Amino acid sequence: MSQLILTTLPNVPLVQPGDDLVRLVLTGLERARLELEDNDVIVIASKILSKAQARIVRLADVTPGQYALELYAETGKDARVIELMLRESSEIVRARRGLIVTRHNLGFVSANAGIDHSNVEQGASDFVLLLPLDPDADAQVIRERIQAETGKRVAIVIADTHGRPHRIGTMGIAIGSAGLPALEDWRGRKDLFGYELKSTDIALADLLASAATLLLGQADEGTPLVHVRGATWSGPDGTARDLVRPKEMDLFP
Amino acid sequence: MSQLILTTLPNVPLVQPGDDLVRLVLTGLERARLELEDNDVIVIASKILSKAQARIVRLADVTPGQYALELYAETGKDARVIELMLRESSEIVRARRGLIVTRHNLGFVSANAGIDHSNVEQGASDFVLLLPLDPDADAQVIRERIQAETGKRVAIVIADTHGRPHRIGTMGIAIGSAGLPALEDWRGRKDLFGYELKSTDIALADLLASAATLLLGQADEGTPLVHVRGATWSGPDGTARDLVRPKEMDLFP
Repeated sequence: MSQLILTTLPNVPLVQPGDDLVRLVLTGLERARLELEDNDVIVIASKILSKAQARIVRLADVTPGQYALELYAETGKDARVIELMLRESSEIVRARRGLIVTRHNLGFVSANAGIDHSNVEQGASDFVLLLPLDPDADAQVIRERIQAETGKRVAIVIADTHGRPHRIGTMGIAIGSAGLPALEDWRGRKDLFGYELKSTDIALADLLASAATLLLGQADEGTPLVHVRGATWSGPDGTARDLVRPKEMDLFP
Repeated sequence: MSQLILTTLPNVPLVQPGDDLVRLVLTGLERARLELEDNDVIVIASKILSKAQARIVRLADVTPGQYALELYAETGKDARVIELMLRESSEIVRARRGLIVTRHNLGFVSANAGIDHSNVEQGASDFVLLLPLDPDADAQVIRERIQAETGKRVAIVIADTHGRPHRIGTMGIAIGSAGLPALEDWRGRKDLFGYELKSTDIALADLLASAATLLLGQADEGTPLVHVRGATWSGPDGTARDLVRPKEMDLFP
C-alpha cells in the first residue's frame, strides 16, 4: 500500500524582493515539524520566486510599442500589459477579444505570458508580476542549497497554473523542476498482462504541481509552499523544459 | 496547516465484466484500514469501470468502413481500431501518421478516443478497451451506493490519462465526477491584497485525477483505486462534462 502525503508549510510570510526562499522552506518545514527525507519534493508557487527576484513591474513605467497597440485594438486588453507579454514571449499564438495566448520565452504556450495581477502588493492594479527568468536553474540552485544545508536529496518543482486548449479550468504545471525526471518515460514497461506500453510518458513534474495546487493558495490563502512525501520515480533527472512540446511537434499551432 | 493524503487501496483483484466496483472500493478500504469520512474522494481508474462494464472489443469482430480505411491510409494505424475510434467519437480533430485526435462522444478532445490496448486480458493485441459509456452517471451511482452503505458523503472521480496539445507527457483527467464541483469557480474570491480574482476556474476533478495518477498504476502495478482525504472545495456539485471546453469556445479547433 503506498501513500502520498502533501503538507502545506504554514505561516509563510509575504515574500519581498531579495528574500531567501531556501530559508523560507527550511523555516516552514520546522514549523510543520517535518524532517526532510531523500526524495521528498518541495513544490514552490512560482509567484513567490518571482517576488523574491523582484520581477514586479509598475505599469506606469511601461510604454506600449506599435505591435502592442495593434493587439490592444484587437483584444481590448491593457496595452502596457500586452507590451510586457510581447517582451516575455517569442510568439503570439492566438489573439481574440479579451484573450492573448503566447509562446513564452520559457518555451510553453499559455494565456497572458503568465503575467499576473493578483497577489501583488502596492496597489494591485498598478503593478504586475512576471514569471521568473530561469525557473529550472532556480529549482536546481534551491535543491543544491537544501542538500548542502540538510544533507537530503530533495526534488524541487516550481508550480504555476495554466488553462488548457480543450478543457476548462486551470491545472498546476511545472515551469521549473530539479531532482526528478520532469517527464518520466514509461515506454518499455510491461502492463499487468505483459503487454509492453508503447507511448506513455508521464508528466511527473506537472502531476506534482497539480497535486500541490489542491493545497497551494491561489487566492487569499497565502500557502505558497507544499511538501510532498511518497512520490516515486525512476530515470534520470530532467527539467521543466522537457515538458514543453517543441513547435515542430505541435498539432495545434 | 492543511494536509492532503492519498492512499492506494491494496490488492484489488483483476476486474471482470459484471464486477461490482462499490464492493471493490469498500473491501479495499477495509484492507487499507481506512474508515470513510464525509468529503473523502475515491479516484477510480476508468479502465476498471470499462472492464466491469464489459467494454472490451475483440478486434477480429470489427469491420472497418470506408472512412476508417481512408484514415488507415493516412495514419498507418490499425483500421479496426480506427473504426472503433470513429464509432466512439463525434469528430476527427487531427490525423497524422501514427496519430489520431478525436472529439469523443463524451465531449473531450483526446488521442485515439481513449481506446486502450494495455491491461486487457485474453491476448492483449487482439482486444481493446473502450471508455465507459456514461462515467458521470456511473460516478453518481457509485457515490449514492457508498452513501447508502456507509452513511458517508464521498466524492467520486473517474480518472483517465490524456496527452496535451502544447505539452509533453500525460496528465490525469476526470472523465466522470460526482459529489464535488468538478470545475470550481474562484471568481469573486479576493487575493492576499484584496484584489478580486477575475478568471480563475480550477479544474478540481482533473487536479484530483492527476494527484491520484501519481499513485494509480498505469503499467504493471495494478492499483486502480485511490482514496483521497483532505481535499476541500466550495460550490455546487458538478460533473466531468463541466470540464469540457465547448467547441464554440475552442481556440484550437
